Amino acid sequence: MAKARLMLIGCGTVAQGLLEIIQQKKTDISLVAISDLKKGSINCADGLDIGKILNLLNTEKSLEDYTCDGCALNKGWDALKTIRECDADIIAEMTFTDIKTGQPATQHIEEALKRGMHVTTSNKGPAALYYNKLKKLAEDNGVKFLIEGTVMSGTPVFNLARECFAGCDITQVKGILNGTTNYILTKMEQEGWSYKDALKKAQELGYAEADPTADVEGFDALAKVLILSNVLLGENVKPDDVPCEGISSITLEDIKAAAAENMRYKLIGSTRKEGDRIIASVKPVKLPMTDPLTGVNGANNALTFNTDLLGDVTIQGAGAGKIETGFSIFVDILNIIR
Amino acid sequence: MAKARLMLIGCGTVAQGLLEIIQQKKTDISLVAISDLKKGSINCADGLDIGKILNLLNTEKSLEDYTCDGCALNKGWDALKTIRECDADIIAEMTFTDIKTGQPATQHIEEALKRGMHVTTSNKGPAALYYNKLKKLAEDNGVKFLIEGTVMSGTPVFNLARECFAGCDITQVKGILNGTTNYILTKMEQEGWSYKDALKKAQELGYAEADPTADVEGFDALAKVLILSNVLLGENVKPDDVPCEGISSITLEDIKAAAAENMRYKLIGSTRKEGDRIIASVKPVKLPMTDPLTGVNGANNALTFNTDLLGDVTIQGAGAGKIETGFSIFVDILNIIR
Repeated sequence: MAKARLMLIGCGTVAQGLLEIIQQKKTDISLVAISDLKKGSINCADGLDIGKILNLLNTEKSLEDYTCDGCALNKGWDALKTIRECDADIIAEMTFTDIKTGQPATQHIEEALKRGMHVTTSNKGPAALYYNKLKKLAEDNGVKFLIEGTVMSGTPVFNLARECFAGCDITQVKGILNGTTNYILTKMEQEGWSYKDALKKAQELGYAEADPTADVEGFDALAKVLILSNVLLGENVKPDDVPCEGISSITLEDIKAAAAENMRYKLIGSTRKEGDRIIASVKPVKLPMTDPLTGVNGANNALTFNTDLLGDVTIQGAGAGKIETGFSIFVDILNIIR
Repeated sequence: MAKARLMLIGCGTVAQGLLEIIQQKKTDISLVAISDLKKGSINCADGLDIGKILNLLNTEKSLEDYTCDGCALNKGWDALKTIRECDADIIAEMTFTDIKTGQPATQHIEEALKRGMHVTTSNKGPAALYYNKLKKLAEDNGVKFLIEGTVMSGTPVFNLARECFAGCDITQVKGILNGTTNYILTKMEQEGWSYKDALKKAQELGYAEADPTADVEGFDALAKVLILSNVLLGENVKPDDVPCEGISSITLEDIKAAAAENMRYKLIGSTRKEGDRIIASVKPVKLPMTDPLTGVNGANNALTFNTDLLGDVTIQGAGAGKIETGFSIFVDILNIIR
């Protein structure tokens, strides 16, 4: 691949982080198309100017205000038309996550893979619900389907497993997969805040949504447990197979009682092989202070891999962020190009 | 490479761990030679039977008691003769570490690279003193020189940086690089033992040598700081450039005083870029409880990478062990074969 032609489907925060990284680093990437429901759609086989696009995004103008002299610029194409009619080597799928249906992202990914285009996504929906199907479709078409950013943003999870644990059997993964709930639990323990006050602060800081259900009831962590099961343990685990309990019923008294026993509550997502079965769950767990997950503070995430040859290995880092998640797409693209 | 022909130079604990892994996993590796000063030397172009070799090692017999029917078995060759006269694709250098001279391992590695053989090593001497020279020699000969096991045994460090932080600038690494001293500090704080008692226990458990100087005075961590500087920051840092202070002067009172401030002593090896300079050191540091390194207990190791795109990422895992270090060689071999 001389210069990889990149198409962006969805142009929100993650895409902007990615574009800033591409702008800053020397790469062999040519941006040929962007299609976003709200921000507009443009494509040009000669390549788009990333600096100009970042200017439009930063000034909240439509992408369709983009101009160039004498190039074959198309405007207004929806995502599917862009995927079907525009030549690219790699598609980054970064539309909104619908964890119930995985759509429309799953359809975008299928269309791209069928046309022999590599796909990278940070969208949890398709990875949680259809990973094995999409992975097979990618293999059948001789391309890659990479999803580093779906769990722990750009902090290495799937690249770590594939490249650094090669030859190991992974028997269990468990971790802190949601930054909002970890921030709330940390503040309750360290500052003595009530659950309600800690949630309010998380909302003020932009960690939690106005409707915090997906975070505090564990559904976001559940999606990540499904992805970890499907990718690392190779099993088709479905949402209904995984008991899911959030942190909304944890009280300050529970946390104080745990601290008195030298323990600490964390919202733990875990999945492990037991014979032919996968046992997965999301629930608040009291951990001893010797557990590497106990020391994970604030909005950070962490994951412990149990392996046959290396024992336990824990990785800790950012769980979200514009540049951090943009990097997850960037590192997938570099993996594809190499 | 159809079936990679592997040569082992040095056949102590790490080599035995590696052979157990190769025996257990399906691989495309054919063991063609072993040369060890004490355990004997054998080689055979048709491949050696790993099960038979493990039996000899486990019963403390000489490798030269190995027999086979009708194969072209050579015995008694020293390391250099084996490297020079025996055909292999990959050499695993696992002789004893001499951190002052890097010999004889460095000579073994040079001989192998010059002959176009890939090299993997867990030996800290050559990596600490001659990494950039050996890396260039490898590149000039179109082969790889991999050293995953020199820092934190098989816990990913260099593979993590190369594969998972691709595109990132690493600006600093700091960590707990020596398990013995971390065990001693942990026991002093958690059990209230004196330095002397904790050291004695570490010696009983086999963590510390009869002469514990290399561990407790920080020289083992220093070698790892040199390697991290040379590999991750790309600089030729020399032992004299790095101030080195161990833990032998830390008292129980120091540790209690730190705990009273909600801090904890750790022996920290660190290296960072500052303009054109590298600032590296090994010394006991009082860390706040919010630092991910503070929670690293017992003989575990951990390393925090500061990166431009991902912020701080910390990895924690085993720092030593027969299978864990054997795995570091194994994963390097898989990287070479792929």
